[in-house]
Amino acid sequence: MNQLLADLRIVEFSAFVAAPLGGMTMAQFGAEVIRIDPVRGALDYNRWPVTESGASLYWAGLNKAKRSVALAFDKPEGRELARAIATAPGPGGGIVLTNLPPFPGLDYASLRAQRDDVILLRLTGNRDGSAAVDYTVNAASGFPLVTGQREGEGGGPVNHVLPAWDIAAGLYLATALLAAERHRGRTGAGQEVTAALSDVMLAMVGHLGYVGDVHINGRARPAIGNDLYGSFGRDFATADGRRVMIIALTPRQWRAIGRATGLADKLEMAGAMMDADLDTEAGRYEARDAIAALLARWCAARSLTEIAAAFAGSGVLWGPFQDFTQLVREDPRSTPQNPLFALVQQPGIGRYPMPGLPLDFTASLRQATRPAPRLGDDTDAVLSTVLGLPDAEIARLHDAGIVAGPDVR
Amino acid sequence: MNQLLADLRIVEFSAFVAAPLGGMTMAQFGAEVIRIDPVRGALDYNRWPVTESGASLYWAGLNKAKRSVALAFDKPEGRELARAIATAPGPGGGIVLTNLPPFPGLDYASLRAQRDDVILLRLTGNRDGSAAVDYTVNAASGFPLVTGQREGEGGGPVNHVLPAWDIAAGLYLATALLAAERHRGRTGAGQEVTAALSDVMLAMVGHLGYVGDVHINGRARPAIGNDLYGSFGRDFATADGRRVMIIALTPRQWRAIGRATGLADKLEMAGAMMDADLDTEAGRYEARDAIAALLARWCAARSLTEIAAAFAGSGVLWGPFQDFTQLVREDPRSTPQNPLFALVQQPGIGRYPMPGLPLDFTASLRQATRPAPRLGDDTDAVLSTVLGLPDAEIARLHDAGIVAGPDVR
Repeated sequence: MNQLLADLRIVEFSAFVAAPLGGMTMAQFGAEVIRIDPVRGALDYNRWPVTESGASLYWAGLNKAKRSVALAFDKPEGRELARAIATAPGPGGGIVLTNLPPFPGLDYASLRAQRDDVILLRLTGNRDGSAAVDYTVNAASGFPLVTGQREGEGGGPVNHVLPAWDIAAGLYLATALLAAERHRGRTGAGQEVTAALSDVMLAMVGHLGYVGDVHINGRARPAIGNDLYGSFGRDFATADGRRVMIIALTPRQWRAIGRATGLADKLEMAGAMMDADLDTEAGRYEARDAIAALLARWCAARSLTEIAAAFAGSGVLWGPFQDFTQLVREDPRSTPQNPLFALVQQPGIGRYPMPGLPLDFTASLRQATRPAPRLGDDTDAVLSTVLGLPDAEIARLHDAGIVAGPDVR
Repeated sequence: MNQLLADLRIVEFSAFVAAPLGGMTMAQFGAEVIRIDPVRGALDYNRWPVTESGASLYWAGLNKAKRSVALAFDKPEGRELARAIATAPGPGGGIVLTNLPPFPGLDYASLRAQRDDVILLRLTGNRDGSAAVDYTVNAASGFPLVTGQREGEGGGPVNHVLPAWDIAAGLYLATALLAAERHRGRTGAGQEVTAALSDVMLAMVGHLGYVGDVHINGRARPAIGNDLYGSFGRDFATADGRRVMIIALTPRQWRAIGRATGLADKLEMAGAMMDADLDTEAGRYEARDAIAALLARWCAARSLTEIAAAFAGSGVLWGPFQDFTQLVREDPRSTPQNPLFALVQQPGIGRYPMPGLPLDFTASLRQATRPAPRLGDDTDAVLSTVLGLPDAEIARLHDAGIVAGPDVR
């Protein structure tokens, strides 16, 4: 949390990862982010992981520091309220972020009719508006067929577990939001910004050179398991049942491996044996199995602690594999000493360390991370402060089932 | 490409993915992005994939639309020039983006001594400045141990192939840059912005609920292969040797599967058999193997074309797996009809489709994607226009080996 965007108000109609992450990033910059959800929550309200009582740790994680309004999207009066909140006056308001299909009255034309300078940022699955989610976009991306297997070994596609395309899309939306708001600040003009999740994937496949590889070289990146493509890097088992990743991207990192392991002479023999110049990335890639044979034996004879000691201060680029529990419980970077984390009391869940923004700004210091709201926590406050509705009218909206207060399950 | 940030000048000292992607994103918004590299190129100048002649498709992909200056960072006069370019006057200048360890004279204090309102955005591996890269951060993240395998099956860690942490870091940097520049526009103040790649990972593990899962539930997400955690989703083989991903996140998507496959009755039996309410996400997750048994047989009896026909317009959320060649050659989203792509002539490589920004802005229309520069392409132009050096001085700098022109290999 910082206060760099404290003058902005963003209204979010969203579910799952991409738009919620984009909105939460703005909230962690201090913006007032109002997520408006259906009365019983959106499709992601119960996403796993959940607590024993069914509260979603995922929802809490992706909606920290936001305000929550719950209202009946299936009723015209509910949508009318949503549009009024989204287009409420004020220089920092009128910014709408969504990854849902447009509700009637919440499309760009309708929002603009209410507020001429509205900015609508809209993520779709495909550019034509058809559905696509991280799972389908990833299947199409080519990556699952070169993950976790080696050419000729058979083996089916391997999906990533990290929703990487959603994360990229959410952060693109955050960037786009600031670019559009900057434009509005200079010209007074709002606009509609659209992105397709499948285009995010296609752009990244292109940026990394794989589109060019097919068009120019007539080939595609092979499946090479955990090997690093085009240089040396691989995972190795330790004597005590752990695994480590060891990498040499640069000449300095390569020489460090020889020095730290005492294998420099034998590694030179591996290069000669494979007719490969191990001072080049391509040479190390060519000789990777011979290099790995030496390092595998070296690692297998040592515990993780011994390997860590041998590599400490050596310039070797390496790291142990950890499971989620080891990451959370044992990694020194997960302790409260890391200012990224703060112990936060999350309503309905409990107290646990929550990460803030992974960015530090000298001009706006890191502030306490705020929990996610309960669903509908801010319904009354937003109706009152943003729309200026009197208490009697708010009570009527509750009675009519148009809005709902906090979900205290 | 658009022109929303055409008034900004960003100077980049970088290598590999994160900072280059952040800078390229700004360039695709129309900013003047000057990447300053050593005379023979930075550590990523030859990264794979490469062409037969050794030109890097990766470097070209991550440096599109930038300007390139080549100079001798190992000489004080070279670093002096780099600092002068980075801190050159002008309201949109003085923004520096880096993921390299600071060169002497290019740290925040030195830059600020030259230009009081400079903004320096700096990505490190770990918060303490120690080295970490996507490969080591990913090893620590917990994800490789739940990717591509199922609990109890054994099997080692599976690395992602997409450099997902670098991508997230690069897009965080782009967002941070605009937030810092907005602050400077309002207050006149620059600042230093820092991010650690390992914090980007830790933040995302937390956002997705996995930190809370360990702290609150005392457990960690299990390894479940390609299954979707907490609902139904899995990959299936088709009769013609392809694979498809089929997903039901929502009740609507779930009912669509029953309708489109004609298996609604049998799926109901699967639910009864497993004592699971398949109208809930948790129920579908509980009964996933029984559901999959039915869908596996259905898919195995049909070709991909037949499956596509059965699912067309049905509301089923699904997609085929493709390799990179299929993605590039056969996916309709990869054709020139997708405005994301443009055929670009890349010096030293050839003509191939390059992706632009995966964002469309109604207030600043998409413009032609520009290729990456050749290394040093803009050295003379930048020395002349940004620093105002006369031709004779530029010639002297070349003769002294302080700067270099285009690499015409």
